[in-house]
Amino acid sequence: MQKKASGMNYAPRSAEGTTRKACARGEFQLGVIGLDHGHIYGMCNGLTEAGGEVAMVYDPDPVKVEAFLKAFPGTPVARSEDEVLQDKDIRLVASAAVPVRRAELGIRAMECGKDYFADKPPCTTRDQLERARRVTQETGRFYSVYYSERIHVEASVMAERLIREGAIGRVVQVINIAPHRMSLEQRPDWFVDPTQYGGIIVDIGSHQIEQFLYYTGARDAQVESSRVGNFTVPQHPRFEDFGDATLTADTGAVGYMRVDWLNPDGLGAWGDGRMFVLGTEGYMEVRKYIDVARDPEGDHLYLVDRQGEHYFNAAGKEGFPFFGNLIRDCLERTQTAYSQHTAFKAIELALDAQENARKLDGTALR
Amino acid sequence: MQKKASGMNYAPRSAEGTTRKACARGEFQLGVIGLDHGHIYGMCNGLTEAGGEVAMVYDPDPVKVEAFLKAFPGTPVARSEDEVLQDKDIRLVASAAVPVRRAELGIRAMECGKDYFADKPPCTTRDQLERARRVTQETGRFYSVYYSERIHVEASVMAERLIREGAIGRVVQVINIAPHRMSLEQRPDWFVDPTQYGGIIVDIGSHQIEQFLYYTGARDAQVESSRVGNFTVPQHPRFEDFGDATLTADTGAVGYMRVDWLNPDGLGAWGDGRMFVLGTEGYMEVRKYIDVARDPEGDHLYLVDRQGEHYFNAAGKEGFPFFGNLIRDCLERTQTAYSQHTAFKAIELALDAQENARKLDGTALR
Repeated sequence: MQKKASGMNYAPRSAEGTTRKACARGEFQLGVIGLDHGHIYGMCNGLTEAGGEVAMVYDPDPVKVEAFLKAFPGTPVARSEDEVLQDKDIRLVASAAVPVRRAELGIRAMECGKDYFADKPPCTTRDQLERARRVTQETGRFYSVYYSERIHVEASVMAERLIREGAIGRVVQVINIAPHRMSLEQRPDWFVDPTQYGGIIVDIGSHQIEQFLYYTGARDAQVESSRVGNFTVPQHPRFEDFGDATLTADTGAVGYMRVDWLNPDGLGAWGDGRMFVLGTEGYMEVRKYIDVARDPEGDHLYLVDRQGEHYFNAAGKEGFPFFGNLIRDCLERTQTAYSQHTAFKAIELALDAQENARKLDGTALR
Repeated sequence: MQKKASGMNYAPRSAEGTTRKACARGEFQLGVIGLDHGHIYGMCNGLTEAGGEVAMVYDPDPVKVEAFLKAFPGTPVARSEDEVLQDKDIRLVASAAVPVRRAELGIRAMECGKDYFADKPPCTTRDQLERARRVTQETGRFYSVYYSERIHVEASVMAERLIREGAIGRVVQVINIAPHRMSLEQRPDWFVDPTQYGGIIVDIGSHQIEQFLYYTGARDAQVESSRVGNFTVPQHPRFEDFGDATLTADTGAVGYMRVDWLNPDGLGAWGDGRMFVLGTEGYMEVRKYIDVARDPEGDHLYLVDRQGEHYFNAAGKEGFPFFGNLIRDCLERTQTAYSQHTAFKAIELALDAQENARKLDGTALR
């Protein structure tokens, strides 16, 4: 699967060939429920490249199912969610349903003894979060999340490794800038309704907050300030095309993130995602999806330390260890791929930032 | 004067040859008092290239005066501040004295009928600001400020022009990242004492806030959050090597700025200053002093709009119109080069952010 240089959705680079299978054939079967967001393809690609098999798919919309079968030919199609949830061989249920429905499905999946793998955001309300958290404790099942910008971008994987290896000393700050292309005419109705997607900081920003927690090594953080606004979509007054937030981690490190739907059409990628990690002994910049006016491909990492300036192209160098680790975690009940604590903490902080955000009056912009 | 690729201070590119003289020979004489910061050279270069003449210099330290005479040979040396302030031919007094002393000097200069040109920050306390503001009103004199990162960087001048021309639509956000090389061993004692320099947001951040006001076209703004910390200099516990702030402008636009003294020694410039301006129809990024691992020189502007991705090298293209305009302003009592309102508003907001900043515990950093 090749990355598209432009268009709406980011199709992660395939790691096939560089990824070691994490399990034997038939050992890890997943069921798919809910194809509303294209991220489901990245989720299934990651898991199947690591040895998993898509054993069954369900969506009420036959058009979406048909499209899915083109990417995963021969997948048995279930007649209901229950058929997937009751299947004894399925160990994990993956879903990119409309965000507001992800938690309910995950709770049912866990209560049926399955682990769960939700597209981000994993939920859209505090009540959903608390119930999901409780059910993970009650059932011992995992509610993992596809925070793709960290786990499914090789430059992000490289950044995480370099930070861990001490390349920039202790992490002082993470700045994450995440513009997205709106392509409003191609979007479903739920895209512009915050009761469906949770607001821009929940929907996109949970990504950035999760990265902040991982790169700083934080267990917890505090939202210092946040803002949301609608600068360009007056026909959908409740939609948010801009959000930002500042956070302070329990490690002492600080973060700033911006998320938006203002990516201009002239960019040869769906968004010019950037991350700056400032350390006590150097800093790095990740240009995730493009290097503007220089390279239409992504996965660029620039590192400056005491010795000099360094450039790394991470494409094909790191793979995506998350997926194989998640499979082993599910099989062995460990938590190496991810931390259940952090998966929930990221969305909890996103909900904090969303709920308390200052509402910007985008229509007043001069 | 050539820009140094590394080192402590940024020596702006000369605009000689591209800059039209703004006045006749002998028409605009300036007196220089206070050579504590190297910015005085940029200030005097800018004004002399635009037609001004350095008519007299004073500093209590003969070593600093001697160094100044190497750059501006033959300048008459005054025996006291008063000798400069009482000189009838001097129209403007320029100063890069220790920040805490800049306001007092400026007030005296204005009371002597001179315009004033202070290095940034123009003052360090609210009381100084209010007195300076009052004296500009009482005397009708100007208290202009060398906010060099906007007025003395050609890529910044180009950004301002492109924004004015509508290249990115209306301005939604400005992100300004301003790392600086500390070079602690080369710094005077006042550098580490916040009572002398006003704190990192006042000292450096007044720059970033001034840029925010100019690029958004704001008259006023509100500080939403701010933080300061000391992550790497435990031997000077009151020193601040990190600061950041979020602001919301009266235009509806928003801003984020980070300032720090953590620029790693391996960078081939004193700081990797970056600015991102997000508009409703595009965005631009300015790489002011270097393009990491690509070009040791600065003045890079990347622009993405609806049509495509564009790269501009601003060096030698824009010049520094501020200085000639300031001279004309002083001669004609207009305010085209700068706005007295904005010069004071920038430091007022910096004082707000500094006073209310959350104090980060840098020693706790894991």
